[in-house]
Amino acid sequence: MTLTEELIAAIRNIPDYPKPGIMFRDITTLLGNPRAFRRSVDELVHPFAGTKIEKVAGMEARGFIIGGAVAHQLSAGFVPIRKKGKLPHDTVRIAYSLEYGVDEMEMHRDAVQPGEKVILVDDLIATGGTAEGAVKLLKQMGAEIVAACFIIDLPALGGRKKLEALGVDVRTLVEFDGH
Amino acid sequence: MTLTEELIAAIRNIPDYPKPGIMFRDITTLLGNPRAFRRSVDELVHPFAGTKIEKVAGMEARGFIIGGAVAHQLSAGFVPIRKKGKLPHDTVRIAYSLEYGVDEMEMHRDAVQPGEKVILVDDLIATGGTAEGAVKLLKQMGAEIVAACFIIDLPALGGRKKLEALGVDVRTLVEFDGH
Repeated sequence: MTLTEELIAAIRNIPDYPKPGIMFRDITTLLGNPRAFRRSVDELVHPFAGTKIEKVAGMEARGFIIGGAVAHQLSAGFVPIRKKGKLPHDTVRIAYSLEYGVDEMEMHRDAVQPGEKVILVDDLIATGGTAEGAVKLLKQMGAEIVAACFIIDLPALGGRKKLEALGVDVRTLVEFDGH
Repeated sequence: MTLTEELIAAIRNIPDYPKPGIMFRDITTLLGNPRAFRRSVDELVHPFAGTKIEKVAGMEARGFIIGGAVAHQLSAGFVPIRKKGKLPHDTVRIAYSLEYGVDEMEMHRDAVQPGEKVILVDDLIATGGTAEGAVKLLKQMGAEIVAACFIIDLPALGGRKKLEALGVDVRTLVEFDGH
């Protein structure tokens, strides 16, 4: 099987979740499949072989699973970007858009140094609200964002374009139509 | 530096967090340190080289970062154990003890098959309430728990003994006295 075929076969589709009309792409079946998980992480990592990546930033919570593996494989540090109130030291915080309303995310103020080369990792990009918030937070701290990497892209929701408009190189492994 | 010295130097100590008298062991500085993070994951993984581990179960949220890296390195599947209400498909659920009161955690019913060899991963073991819940949940689904692995042990809080009383092989990298 090609990579795309293997990953699509490993992702579970849950109709009408979390609400009617939405087809939820459940990545837990991909994570639980040794070949599909291994192959996804390796595919996300390989463009950066031989380049210097100092930090991998991952978004709570599924971005931690993939980001932790990517950071280890690149011998980079891992930076958790969390919902507000979860980090124990001095943080920087930013508001981001959800489907309804806004929330806030934060990272430790000393997690990234100015000029460090960072990649951002999450499982999926949809509207790109959380990824956009994370990009702004990382730029605010002076990071050089080398790329933003996702397993799944839902291009109809516009997240990729939103990040590209901020000058970010977006890399994804599989696309699904619609929501 | 020895492994122990390097990891202790990489962990940030935050006094009186989250409340007076508690010394919080902040692992985010270890995660953000490329050498310390790489070395921690490699040290957790190496006892299992050449053995067959089918799944790595990680507890939300910091256990996802380390567990994701361990699963990828072992070419195993990753099983997320989450707070209730976060997983999209059929789950099994168990109550577990917190310092004050109880909460519930869950995993997908099809995440582990009977007889599968599983290791459980988290950043820290303190009272062992969440790890005990996860062990019971995995055993309920028929998993064979090969080991439970943590970077930090706070032995005074009794978590290790609690897991060992359940017959689990507990592996940790560094210990701190007190809370």
